[in-house]
Amino acid sequence: MRIDILSLFPEMFEGVFQSSILKKANENNYFSYNFINFRDFADNKHNKVDDYPYGGGAGMVLKPQPIFDAVDTIETKENKKPRIILMCPQGETLTQQKAEELSREEHLIFICGHYEGYDERIRTNLVTDEISIGDYVLTGGELGAMVVIDSVVRLIPGVLGNDDSAIQDSFSTGLLEHPHYTRPAEFRGLKVPDVLLSGNHAHIDQWRKKESLKRTFSRRPDLIDNLELSNEEEEWLKEWGNNESSS
Amino acid sequence: MRIDILSLFPEMFEGVFQSSILKKANENNYFSYNFINFRDFADNKHNKVDDYPYGGGAGMVLKPQPIFDAVDTIETKENKKPRIILMCPQGETLTQQKAEELSREEHLIFICGHYEGYDERIRTNLVTDEISIGDYVLTGGELGAMVVIDSVVRLIPGVLGNDDSAIQDSFSTGLLEHPHYTRPAEFRGLKVPDVLLSGNHAHIDQWRKKESLKRTFSRRPDLIDNLELSNEEEEWLKEWGNNESSS
Repeated sequence: MRIDILSLFPEMFEGVFQSSILKKANENNYFSYNFINFRDFADNKHNKVDDYPYGGGAGMVLKPQPIFDAVDTIETKENKKPRIILMCPQGETLTQQKAEELSREEHLIFICGHYEGYDERIRTNLVTDEISIGDYVLTGGELGAMVVIDSVVRLIPGVLGNDDSAIQDSFSTGLLEHPHYTRPAEFRGLKVPDVLLSGNHAHIDQWRKKESLKRTFSRRPDLIDNLELSNEEEEWLKEWGNNESSS
Repeated sequence: MRIDILSLFPEMFEGVFQSSILKKANENNYFSYNFINFRDFADNKHNKVDDYPYGGGAGMVLKPQPIFDAVDTIETKENKKPRIILMCPQGETLTQQKAEELSREEHLIFICGHYEGYDERIRTNLVTDEISIGDYVLTGGELGAMVVIDSVVRLIPGVLGNDDSAIQDSFSTGLLEHPHYTRPAEFRGLKVPDVLLSGNHAHIDQWRKKESLKRTFSRRPDLIDNLELSNEEEEWLKEWGNNESSS
């Protein structure tokens, strides 16, 4: 996969791209990246990339020209158009499904603004996707792009070793993970549940299934609506629901 | 505000903390930060911070001891307990409201795991908050912590200059932003809407209000449920809803 990133602050990416999985994935040629500072494309003598909004109001707006021209210089394969992703709070909220979809692409281009709005023509006539990582305000699109890239690159087949990929990730099963415990069996007076020390794997599986559902029920009931449940699981839910309404 | 970050990969934060608003906020003493590599606290000769899960299964689990002991060394004020935040997919999803709440604290401690699960005793007996930045899987908690810290620090009074803070952020008004345009009035054949060039500020305000609601209606109808709308806005929504069902 090839990733081009348009940003006025390419140095922000360094620590994240030089560590851990992204570093390894890059070294092993699963993905390559390239930064484009679109200030270099400003066609005015002060290299300005923003300007006042038409119609007045506070804040500045990123001009269309430097960003369109920067994207024009990116080489693309004729038969395979890249996805051009605008990081913005108005975009589609990132989900694991969206990350999986993007992980099957060959070429992604990210556009990261900073503080400011984007001229609407960038949205309507240049990009293929607008993505937000959540309902909160960040200083710029850079952190959002790093989040999308991390979530996507780790899904490229081969990037995660067997050990890593074997982990049952939250969101891939549809439920939140059950509790985990490791040694010691007692730490500062806090004990590991007996069932996990029992060696009875049927009981352990049952306990984990129930705890996973219980945690999802209490923290993220919205996730349960999308699941097909067994009769036993339906019974558990009914029981917890009754306890909740009587407490 | 003081921020302590427990991480096995403190170098990941460098580019983000050394740029833009976070750099300025740190230089101007609005917040200070400190990294603690909890591997330094492992009480075994190989400095192992993880171990196999009780009850079997794939993946490793972060041990309680190094993390509890690392947090114990952090100096805190007696009368003011810090918030201890665990970054994890099972946590409460970050919102702008949560960022505002955290921006009023004096001391935050972030715990970032990497790949692995946390021993449940960290969850139940050490942390005050569990936060997720969204429903997707990341390689570790570091990017999530950066996102929370960026969203929080920019809300500390004084961190943003007047120009920046005057921007009408999405999520603070409850609606997505209306389209922005800047010069030129025509770019590659794409024109700015006439109303924005009209100089009629009542018309411009009306257009922006309507476009903001329209964008929210088409992209994020879930946000509209929480708003109190004027009669005029209710009429617009009805009109768009009818168009949608007849198309």
